[in-house]
Amino acid sequence: MKKFAVLGYGTVGSGVVELFYKNRAKIEQKAGDRMDVGYILDLRDFPDSPYADKFTKSMDTILADPEVTVVAECMGGVEPAFTYLMQCLDKGISVATSNKELIARKGAVLLAEAKAHSCNCFFEASVGGAIPIIRPLHRCLAANDISAVYGILNGTTNFILDKMLSDDMSFEAALSLAQALGYAEREPSADVDGHDACRKICIIASLVFGKHVYPESVKTVGIREVSLADAAAADALDGSVKLIASVRRLEDGRILPMVQPMFVPHENILSRVDGVFNAVMVCGDGIDRAVFCGRGAGKLPTASAVMGDVIEAAKHNCTVFSQDWIDSGEQDFIADADMLCCGLMIRTANGDTASLTNAVVDFCNANGVDASVEAAVVDGGAACYTTAMNHAQQNALLAALHAAGLQVVSALPVLDA
Amino acid sequence: MKKFAVLGYGTVGSGVVELFYKNRAKIEQKAGDRMDVGYILDLRDFPDSPYADKFTKSMDTILADPEVTVVAECMGGVEPAFTYLMQCLDKGISVATSNKELIARKGAVLLAEAKAHSCNCFFEASVGGAIPIIRPLHRCLAANDISAVYGILNGTTNFILDKMLSDDMSFEAALSLAQALGYAEREPSADVDGHDACRKICIIASLVFGKHVYPESVKTVGIREVSLADAAAADALDGSVKLIASVRRLEDGRILPMVQPMFVPHENILSRVDGVFNAVMVCGDGIDRAVFCGRGAGKLPTASAVMGDVIEAAKHNCTVFSQDWIDSGEQDFIADADMLCCGLMIRTANGDTASLTNAVVDFCNANGVDASVEAAVVDGGAACYTTAMNHAQQNALLAALHAAGLQVVSALPVLDA
Repeated sequence: MKKFAVLGYGTVGSGVVELFYKNRAKIEQKAGDRMDVGYILDLRDFPDSPYADKFTKSMDTILADPEVTVVAECMGGVEPAFTYLMQCLDKGISVATSNKELIARKGAVLLAEAKAHSCNCFFEASVGGAIPIIRPLHRCLAANDISAVYGILNGTTNFILDKMLSDDMSFEAALSLAQALGYAEREPSADVDGHDACRKICIIASLVFGKHVYPESVKTVGIREVSLADAAAADALDGSVKLIASVRRLEDGRILPMVQPMFVPHENILSRVDGVFNAVMVCGDGIDRAVFCGRGAGKLPTASAVMGDVIEAAKHNCTVFSQDWIDSGEQDFIADADMLCCGLMIRTANGDTASLTNAVVDFCNANGVDASVEAAVVDGGAACYTTAMNHAQQNALLAALHAAGLQVVSALPVLDA
Repeated sequence: MKKFAVLGYGTVGSGVVELFYKNRAKIEQKAGDRMDVGYILDLRDFPDSPYADKFTKSMDTILADPEVTVVAECMGGVEPAFTYLMQCLDKGISVATSNKELIARKGAVLLAEAKAHSCNCFFEASVGGAIPIIRPLHRCLAANDISAVYGILNGTTNFILDKMLSDDMSFEAALSLAQALGYAEREPSADVDGHDACRKICIIASLVFGKHVYPESVKTVGIREVSLADAAAADALDGSVKLIASVRRLEDGRILPMVQPMFVPHENILSRVDGVFNAVMVCGDGIDRAVFCGRGAGKLPTASAVMGDVIEAAKHNCTVFSQDWIDSGEQDFIADADMLCCGLMIRTANGDTASLTNAVVDFCNANGVDASVEAAVVDGGAACYTTAMNHAQQNALLAALHAAGLQVVSALPVLDA
């Protein structure tokens, strides 16, 4: 019998308990042993719960039970989750967590502690909800030299961007709808300002490139400045605007993690990921590219990922799956955001497609940039997108358009992967 | 030092050797040990290969070397691959194979042998090439009750269907192009008649539902009968025609595996999977749905999957990852193909959208079927697709359309997931 404890009985924690009892027979078959929930830690009382006898308010009770071999942490926030998980690992109890803030902040420490005590710290649920991405990245794609990862890692912002276009809504109206539907918090900053996506790309970047990437080191731009006109222009250009969290390795070996709204042409399958779905595209020398797509949040999807880790930890509790990275104390392996070489989607408040295209082509030809340009008529002016160019060239292009009498009202980076 | 052997130095086998030496440092870091290719088994001579000293024509040489802990089988075909792998497993040597024919035919036997000798038989590369699907299905999604899997599992047919529409080609012309580009064999039956996709869905069905599903038990229809007019009608109806390999569990507990061309509306992301890419959609009670997409074939993509398994086997060579199924000797858990409940995409050689829509709606209303119908004008007639109905209703609908004077020239099942 393998007993596991669930820390926190909110949305995710209660989902873990629900999913376990629903699919217990299958889960025990996969784990190769009987399993049960030993304890549920929560400060609140749940007298009417069918699991009322399992609740405890004391972490020490859980730590003192030698039968507990795995702990599922679904509390959120850095503390007390961090202290509790360190106590578990110190005793050789494996942990599975859905807590992206915790891993983005303390991942290197937790993983080192797990290694030192021959147990596992799993965090599949911290990125991409139901989407298996951490284990595939680390294990299935282990033979690849991974050069870049691009993702739609926040379902709330993806829903808002979708709704703006499909229902002709302003950002504010779409945000209100997302809040009414329970997809967005009343205080929506973590989602709409990109912090949630930032934590997730930090975890992916740390895992793929081996050094802890802190959220403060990542240029993070949310979607507040994306207008309905931008979304409509993207649509006219056969693409969409998506909040893209990305990390790529530059030629000098440094990495460039970033969160920002980007124009994604429809040739890229990420442009087709709608609503509250998330997706992650991985580029490697063996696979070329692979895309993983699914529900990025929600009770049962996130619980599925946590429970998958719990089963893995229970089944292989003598095998340490080292997926770790070091915290060098430095962030000098991270390049400045202006090292990003990419195209621009440009929208103007005057001129027509011919004048915009001609001005862009002239600039490109004069500056050695591939002059392939797609353009479309938009309300009040024109829009186009260019091929990739460096930061100085982007600025020079905007200056050249200004000099040509064109009023550029927005310029979004283009995802050309 | 972990030594592994590669059986077969064709496209995949040579890719495994190439990828290993290219990314050796990363791979050894993941494996936690030095690694090297000990032997390459091939009946041919490669005197100019940089690995000339590793070639052998004798399986016994490999089996006699106690340092070999993993064997990567990239020969294809059932024999002698089956005999060789049984010999390996019998000695406790783990195996990783890209051989879908072998696993579809002998999976249950190989997996039981691995279990009996405390080693692993991995086969990630046998389905979906570079796409991590076997391990995610079995491990990451272990907490789910999986109800269905739908996939585009053959890149050659997907390329042909794409080309027919995008370049206005007949099936024959698109096949010739695929052959010229090296995507299709000179003898294309395994691809275009659906046998390759059938083997892959057999492997997935066996893994997910726990009993060996043999290719002969699976209704398999290829793409020879799909016309350019069908592809154009699908496009007019905002969807595409894809060769879908699927397995779903019916309410009576039996499963329904199938390979056939289907109409996929654009709401379903599978309709957007283009060219030689493959994709797999998994439906489960925890995740709702998750989609995995990537290159389904090719030298390095397939080698990436084989090498991922080799690393896993080398790293965890004392841990047995039971992913097995039983061969009950019966196939009575498989339902008849006419149990499939689905909509139809209908194309006519006469009439207009109004007459077709009216006839379909009248039929649906008279038979208790949801009467939502999408229709479009096509060359020479009209096309539409319906909501799901059972086999008897499908036949009755076609009879009703005939009675209404409409000449139905094709009727394709609709993927409504």
